[in-house]
Amino acid sequence: MNEANGLNPGEAGLSEGAEKFLGVSDGEMLSFSHLGSLDSMGDVRRKIYGHELDQPAYDRIISDIVDLDLSNVQLSAFITACAGDRMTLNEIVALTRSMIDSGQKIDWGPDPVFDKHSIGGLPGNRTTPIVVAIVAAAGLKIPKTSSRAITSPAGTADTMETLTNVELDIAEIRKVVQQEGGCLAWGGAVQLSPADDILIRVERALDLDSEGQLIASVLSKKSAAGSKAVVVDIPVGTTAKVRSMDEAERLASRMRGVGEEIGLKVNPVISDGSQPVGRGIGPALEALDVLDVLQCGSNAPEDLRKRAVTLAGELLEMSGTIKPGTGEISAGQILDSGKAWEKFVRICEAQGGLITPPVAEYVEEIRAPKSGRVTAIDNRKIARLAKLAGAPTSPAAGILLKVTLGDEVAAGDAVFELHSQSNGELEYAMDYLSNNADLVQIGDDDGN
Amino acid sequence: MNEANGLNPGEAGLSEGAEKFLGVSDGEMLSFSHLGSLDSMGDVRRKIYGHELDQPAYDRIISDIVDLDLSNVQLSAFITACAGDRMTLNEIVALTRSMIDSGQKIDWGPDPVFDKHSIGGLPGNRTTPIVVAIVAAAGLKIPKTSSRAITSPAGTADTMETLTNVELDIAEIRKVVQQEGGCLAWGGAVQLSPADDILIRVERALDLDSEGQLIASVLSKKSAAGSKAVVVDIPVGTTAKVRSMDEAERLASRMRGVGEEIGLKVNPVISDGSQPVGRGIGPALEALDVLDVLQCGSNAPEDLRKRAVTLAGELLEMSGTIKPGTGEISAGQILDSGKAWEKFVRICEAQGGLITPPVAEYVEEIRAPKSGRVTAIDNRKIARLAKLAGAPTSPAAGILLKVTLGDEVAAGDAVFELHSQSNGELEYAMDYLSNNADLVQIGDDDGN
Repeated sequence: MNEANGLNPGEAGLSEGAEKFLGVSDGEMLSFSHLGSLDSMGDVRRKIYGHELDQPAYDRIISDIVDLDLSNVQLSAFITACAGDRMTLNEIVALTRSMIDSGQKIDWGPDPVFDKHSIGGLPGNRTTPIVVAIVAAAGLKIPKTSSRAITSPAGTADTMETLTNVELDIAEIRKVVQQEGGCLAWGGAVQLSPADDILIRVERALDLDSEGQLIASVLSKKSAAGSKAVVVDIPVGTTAKVRSMDEAERLASRMRGVGEEIGLKVNPVISDGSQPVGRGIGPALEALDVLDVLQCGSNAPEDLRKRAVTLAGELLEMSGTIKPGTGEISAGQILDSGKAWEKFVRICEAQGGLITPPVAEYVEEIRAPKSGRVTAIDNRKIARLAKLAGAPTSPAAGILLKVTLGDEVAAGDAVFELHSQSNGELEYAMDYLSNNADLVQIGDDDGN
Repeated sequence: MNEANGLNPGEAGLSEGAEKFLGVSDGEMLSFSHLGSLDSMGDVRRKIYGHELDQPAYDRIISDIVDLDLSNVQLSAFITACAGDRMTLNEIVALTRSMIDSGQKIDWGPDPVFDKHSIGGLPGNRTTPIVVAIVAAAGLKIPKTSSRAITSPAGTADTMETLTNVELDIAEIRKVVQQEGGCLAWGGAVQLSPADDILIRVERALDLDSEGQLIASVLSKKSAAGSKAVVVDIPVGTTAKVRSMDEAERLASRMRGVGEEIGLKVNPVISDGSQPVGRGIGPALEALDVLDVLQCGSNAPEDLRKRAVTLAGELLEMSGTIKPGTGEISAGQILDSGKAWEKFVRICEAQGGLITPPVAEYVEEIRAPKSGRVTAIDNRKIARLAKLAGAPTSPAAGILLKVTLGDEVAAGDAVFELHSQSNGELEYAMDYLSNNADLVQIGDDDGN
């Protein structure tokens, strides 16, 4: 590049970013051409106008996404065009296949490989570390990769990061799984579905998570990770992501259908999504609940334990190593015996060591304004409040619930605590709370 | 602001842009708060999920758009959610009303005010300057504001800008119209529909123009400009924006319906959209055609003249000043008498003076590779080629057609000229042409 302020004919100046991206250096010969029109935007427009797209069309779109050729405005149009139940089963299969083919794949050889997923939207539903520990302790292979939060206050990767290192590459995942049967890694470091990682950024900006994209996102990552059998937790509740049984059954059937097409056995488990799970909401606070359950603490949240045991039991049954109908009992025994906790510690050690989750500096106790029974807890508002308090970016931030649905409280009793790592974030959360006092509803005895 | 590199407690540093936007200066007291969540994004998500939105929802969305509170990613989602025939007539009416209420309005008093619009997609269809000249010459009031190109090689404002000043504010428009009965101004300077101006930016990035948004965009601007009666040209052709008679009739009926609801009489005229109109495509080249027709030149493009006379005749009939069925004859007489040309010159003089359109420096003649009959001219590819040649940013750039459908050409005859203001743009266009030789199709005598 010319050191002077101007350029001479035949010279071009590049930003440092462009130099790095193109991998060129000073003095090299460059040729420039006009940006061609993107065939994939023609496909996106066809989708916007309601046409069904085929496999080559999804391949073109996903390939352009991975090559960073689509702008955020274009990605937003693609995501929106696919949202609101506008993808057929064939389209979801095609999108899933395109996503699988766009990234790395892990081959575990002939051994069956198990996996687990939860549809989000239920704060505190952090069953994955417990399920992985139980299933791996039972001798099955479960190389779990998880995402960070998309629109929630914590993803499994965020929570696990407060307990151990989660940024493993494929070689490291192989090593941990070979040694312990399971792992708890962040999926984003592995590039299992690079297109999905890009789409998720825009979905987060839109606060939008559509059925077709959701299924393709989840199942492409499971398949690319080499899984053959996956249990999927689908919580249903008026303030959960899935709001009705009809919707849950539809999602379950479509996940099963797409799984069959791509050679992945999918067993959906529809569960209660009427209120948050456990006590903590936010990376570190959820990690403490997970530790309590794994260590069989006397105060361990029973709902979290029950959900984890159900899901682990389903996987044990899918493996064919135990009799049908005995999965939950087996899973409970493995947990009670301390073997799951032992396995969890060993997995964390193999990933880089077990660490203690951070504790928030600023804690504010929220008290009941009146006596009565807890009649409703709004998952969405609880999640929003935890995010305003700083979760997941501030790992210690979030909410510690002191009540569950049906509890009787007296005026002045603690309902929950707000945890923050800065005073400003605490104030944002308190400000939101003052306008959303219905976040936890306490009814009078006459039901009001 | 603190002149040092750091800030002291209680101090804030703002960029010059932020200072200007907020209208604050050095030393002022500022208070900061967390960005609230946008209610309108909840509305957009409801639309994405297929729900019909009501007037208050569209009001919230349009208000947030005008306040610049929606990001491009969010705007893209809104536009996409409304595209592909996903708006009901009630929704289009609501969106149109929101857009009208979001900007300035012009009141012309009790006089009837006329207007004209063409659905785009047909290169060279530059009837507006001719229609305005005829109608104003007939003594009617037609304060025409036009847009610049959205996805085409030229908008009426781009073409008129090569002939006179088009950046008039409302006071200037009033003055010109008071004096001459008509004007030919750029609508964007008037803020008649500021939300639409923002939406159009994103639609251009997506190369997307949906029916509902199109109707709301067009009719909100007509209504805000104080029009009471508008004729709408809807060209139909396989490579035009509207591709079938069914689609044209549906659009015509919806435009009429929305017009009725907002107190605007809309008369759609469905026209032939099988090939470009006139000879020039691009701002200056189209201006030359317009001048030719207005001056009744012996070589004036007959198709452009015919279309303009039809539309002007429709407006004359809508005014009730002439007998039904005599509109075209009257309009043709006004044109032939030289009164339309005289009126056009006076309007341009009132807007700042008539100027001569620029001429391109680089011209490349494209010749027929074989003898035969011209069987197809692709409007979309012609438009794309003209844009690659530099239109509308380079006003002299574009295409000069030498043939129309059905013409017999001999091998080596000129088919069209490419005009560019830089060699690089000419090369882009030539490069596109080499991969799209079917842009003008010449058939053998046996029809191949």
